[in-house]
Amino acid sequence: MYQQIADEIRGQIVAGDLEPGAKLPTEAEMRSAYDVSRETVRKALNLLVNEGLVVSARPQGHFVRRREPMIFRPQTEFRKRPHSPEMDAFATEHSAEGREPRQVIEVAIVEPPAEVAKRLQLKAGDLVAIRKRVRYLDGEPFNINDSYFPLDIVRDSEIMRPEDITRGANEVLAELGYRQVRALDELYVRMPQPEEVKRLELPPGTPVGYHITTGFTAEGRPVRVATTVLPGDRHVISYERGLETPGEEA
Amino acid sequence: MYQQIADEIRGQIVAGDLEPGAKLPTEAEMRSAYDVSRETVRKALNLLVNEGLVVSARPQGHFVRRREPMIFRPQTEFRKRPHSPEMDAFATEHSAEGREPRQVIEVAIVEPPAEVAKRLQLKAGDLVAIRKRVRYLDGEPFNINDSYFPLDIVRDSEIMRPEDITRGANEVLAELGYRQVRALDELYVRMPQPEEVKRLELPPGTPVGYHITTGFTAEGRPVRVATTVLPGDRHVISYERGLETPGEEA
Repeated sequence: MYQQIADEIRGQIVAGDLEPGAKLPTEAEMRSAYDVSRETVRKALNLLVNEGLVVSARPQGHFVRRREPMIFRPQTEFRKRPHSPEMDAFATEHSAEGREPRQVIEVAIVEPPAEVAKRLQLKAGDLVAIRKRVRYLDGEPFNINDSYFPLDIVRDSEIMRPEDITRGANEVLAELGYRQVRALDELYVRMPQPEEVKRLELPPGTPVGYHITTGFTAEGRPVRVATTVLPGDRHVISYERGLETPGEEA
Repeated sequence: MYQQIADEIRGQIVAGDLEPGAKLPTEAEMRSAYDVSRETVRKALNLLVNEGLVVSARPQGHFVRRREPMIFRPQTEFRKRPHSPEMDAFATEHSAEGREPRQVIEVAIVEPPAEVAKRLQLKAGDLVAIRKRVRYLDGEPFNINDSYFPLDIVRDSEIMRPEDITRGANEVLAELGYRQVRALDELYVRMPQPEEVKRLELPPGTPVGYHITTGFTAEGRPVRVATTVLPGDRHVISYERGLETPGEEA
């Protein structure tokens, strides 16, 4: 029975009849509308909370969850302007205009996690510099971005200072003789780890995208690994692609 | 207390001390190791199941979840061969070699969902042709892929037949005079809907990636929207990118 109630409310949310931010009927109203027990109503609401569709804001009640995703565009690390009118239109629609960005940066020298050591092709014992950033928008934590660099190439550079680098860490790497010409992006979809739940203040039913970019020089040396934890309710990840002519296909 | 037990086991899984497929200690062993009640042990195990780290296979017990992700490469729709040695190496490592692919295709004429109508810039009442595919690997459902086309341009083509199109639906569109030259990819991360749980046989704690590609002709007309539901435990989504020279940055 609670599944049927949840199905009905979910249907209204997906169809847009219940809009983001709308208040659901109270527990008492639902009990009498469906003629069920308080426990059944609570199980239905709990299911919708765990699916990430509804938020509970006691004592006011339950609300349809708002989604105002920010665009995460891996390509903008190197390409600031969208190339196509479609991306322009898309960016305008999803813009976070008027929201106030802020970031907190920490720098440290660490032994790299295994997944980073492998991608940077490091030897056992090699250390990395890490720049850890938490980015906020309007005071709300939006994502966690950690960039790793082989320590031997960045030791005496600006990358070691916990400040924003206006021209970008990639440009600093290029000045040091390690210009990146290619990148490989990997994206994993998973539930957050407890530490991520805490740092990103994630409500129940919020999976994350885990994005890993590895940047390579023309010689094929990996010189940077950036990992980003992207809460699913706050982001849309987007790419624009030029398609190739059929002659180039295998 | 159950959180501490879960933290300890999670730590062993993340560090690799408990490998994918490994059996966890039995409930009785855990009760005596931690000196706690059966209920505390069950709460700890339940937490790990909901985080997607552990599967319950009664009566045998609990096991570390296996992940053998398939690479989802949006770029291969048009570019079959990887361009870079990095993507080659990555593809080899994540290959689904030896696993048997199969797909089930259905074709229908429908009113488009709102999100598709908007992206195809359709007018109210315009219909679309939809090709719905469920892809299996070794009998396990891997992903759901639905492609939408404005009905007026594909009405009399092969796209309307529920069979695999060896040269690809994109090539058929090109032959019909609608060659795509650009695409916009959007990726959302969310919990699955109940129908997706059923069709993809998703265990608890399995979020999905929802990937939407819109393909455009040189004139900027959108002629195809493809949506793919990608279970997080079965996929890594990957892109290879060439990076541009600083001169092109904004």
